[in-house]
Amino acid sequence: MAVKERKSVAPTLAWVGEVDGHLRIIDQTLLPAQFREIDLAEPEQVWEAIRALRVRGAPAIGVAAAYGVVLGLSDVATKDRSAVERRVAKVADYLATSRPTAVNLFWALDRMRNVVAAHPQLSASELVARMLEEARQIEQEDCEMCAAIGRHGAELLADGTGVLTHCNAGSLATAGDGTALSVIYAAVRQGKQLHVFVDETRPLLQGARLTSWELTQRGIPATLLCDSAAGWIMYEGRVQAVITGADRIAANGDAANKIGTYSVAVLAKEHKIPFYVAAPSSTFDLDLPDGNAIPIEERPESEVTEPFDRVTAPEGMRARNPAFDVTPAALITCLITEKGLIRPVNAANVRKVLGAAK
Amino acid sequence: MAVKERKSVAPTLAWVGEVDGHLRIIDQTLLPAQFREIDLAEPEQVWEAIRALRVRGAPAIGVAAAYGVVLGLSDVATKDRSAVERRVAKVADYLATSRPTAVNLFWALDRMRNVVAAHPQLSASELVARMLEEARQIEQEDCEMCAAIGRHGAELLADGTGVLTHCNAGSLATAGDGTALSVIYAAVRQGKQLHVFVDETRPLLQGARLTSWELTQRGIPATLLCDSAAGWIMYEGRVQAVITGADRIAANGDAANKIGTYSVAVLAKEHKIPFYVAAPSSTFDLDLPDGNAIPIEERPESEVTEPFDRVTAPEGMRARNPAFDVTPAALITCLITEKGLIRPVNAANVRKVLGAAK
Repeated sequence: MAVKERKSVAPTLAWVGEVDGHLRIIDQTLLPAQFREIDLAEPEQVWEAIRALRVRGAPAIGVAAAYGVVLGLSDVATKDRSAVERRVAKVADYLATSRPTAVNLFWALDRMRNVVAAHPQLSASELVARMLEEARQIEQEDCEMCAAIGRHGAELLADGTGVLTHCNAGSLATAGDGTALSVIYAAVRQGKQLHVFVDETRPLLQGARLTSWELTQRGIPATLLCDSAAGWIMYEGRVQAVITGADRIAANGDAANKIGTYSVAVLAKEHKIPFYVAAPSSTFDLDLPDGNAIPIEERPESEVTEPFDRVTAPEGMRARNPAFDVTPAALITCLITEKGLIRPVNAANVRKVLGAAK
Repeated sequence: MAVKERKSVAPTLAWVGEVDGHLRIIDQTLLPAQFREIDLAEPEQVWEAIRALRVRGAPAIGVAAAYGVVLGLSDVATKDRSAVERRVAKVADYLATSRPTAVNLFWALDRMRNVVAAHPQLSASELVARMLEEARQIEQEDCEMCAAIGRHGAELLADGTGVLTHCNAGSLATAGDGTALSVIYAAVRQGKQLHVFVDETRPLLQGARLTSWELTQRGIPATLLCDSAAGWIMYEGRVQAVITGADRIAANGDAANKIGTYSVAVLAKEHKIPFYVAAPSSTFDLDLPDGNAIPIEERPESEVTEPFDRVTAPEGMRARNPAFDVTPAALITCLITEKGLIRPVNAANVRKVLGAAK
């Protein structure tokens, strides 16, 4: 019996209106207890929403930032073109400071910047309209990217597979069906029975709050775990594949993703379980030779010592809170991109599948 | 500069009074936000305190259960001896149902049962007095055991070592200085500079709440981590040794301990970091050939889905919550017992160090 899949109740993010419109997002910090959409009308609100993880997931951050640039242009659309140009540069630079690790953020902002240079003939208002069109294209491409990743990746999951995932790389992390979860959704649509094991993903519990929410919305069988239980569940023989997303992938295939991903990859290796990373080509940063060059965001200690406003550590106790870690290419069985599968994972195969152009 | 060590403010558990006395424990579920001692006057209260983890840690559970038997005898001390004998059997059987994994519980209850057979000449009141003496002996031996484990283990930690620990195997887990933490405390007393990395230890955060509390009380430099960050901290090169406690160790050296210990052991292997398990001989269950025979307690799903009374998973989401996992002997560099070091870890060396008697 195929699992009946329900659609998510609202898109993770959507532009409302035309050039003078605004960005509507699901405030993911409130899920699953509260489902609330918030409207962002200023670049500063987009910056704060990205920093505070109201919108998160590398692809979704890119789309949000692109619309954020458009939000910064409303009061210069009627002025001269050079005012628009200066504003684009300023707002893009500003939004780039919201989070350091996900490269899709910088990629999307570069695309918005490039519109200016590519269309020297446009007036101020025409340029602003074209910027909105570019942001919409980024969003549309993101949806298509998710579908293509699902298509390419689904063949890797046999019927009856137990799949473990870490953090949330689903529809809440993209404008479409997600990256890692898109593979799962595509396999389920093919009629495969899967069981998803969801790492809760401390400190901010994106697995418990967001991935669990997506899976229960869609009626896909799933079990939530403390992160520390992943190894034991593998030892019990319940996991036949691991899939995660990524926030930045270096030229050699080393992949930065949510803290804990590296541990899961080591555990997968120990148990001879394939470890897959699903991400669009926009997540690759081919300027970086390997993962050592990827900047790792350190977030506030209080996310560890005061989880959800409850003090759990004694006064004076220090904490480390790296938001990401880097999984070396050698631990990744296959990278799943919208352009196809990259395996084995090495610099030559990354170049080959992504195309020399990039 | 040697670290100045402050003593813990109160013992983890202490008997107050004589045969008609009661057991006073620190309610560890309230730490570190509240330091509160509670008095237990009935076996039912001891059972609840063990089940609810107000008192926890394999050695401390054993001591608490021994005193719990004494609490069950207050109303039969003036009766005939057979009433005492029947009550001992009944209360010991009852307390054995409080938690399934830590073997020290059963070991301590057996010692209390054996007092009855070993002293057929005693009257009812004399037997009750002897039972209290036995419980006190178990407590005293536990203190000496902790000191001996610290003595044997300290040689394994060089000056300047970064030590990672999981859960709490400290003074709060024993009547003395702890097992894993006793090794750290002994090394610090020798003037060695250590830095302790503390896994927070979801779901119940014994690392964040209890180990952090002990270390800050004693002024030992320490850093708290989400469990999922342990692998990355090792990758960064900050950890040169891992030490944990154990709740039950099979004849071949396979060791059950808090969920997540197995993952840490696999990560230690990947990073070529020695992995030590510190536990008294009472934690060994030589009747079990290997770890497959150790029963693993499954605790309520709500500890995962509603951490600290905050709902973090959507309605209908299922969870797994094994309280323990088993680390195979092959992943353990050395077992640290009060009778000496067991290395390499195998059945022959376990027998040799513990002595054939057991």
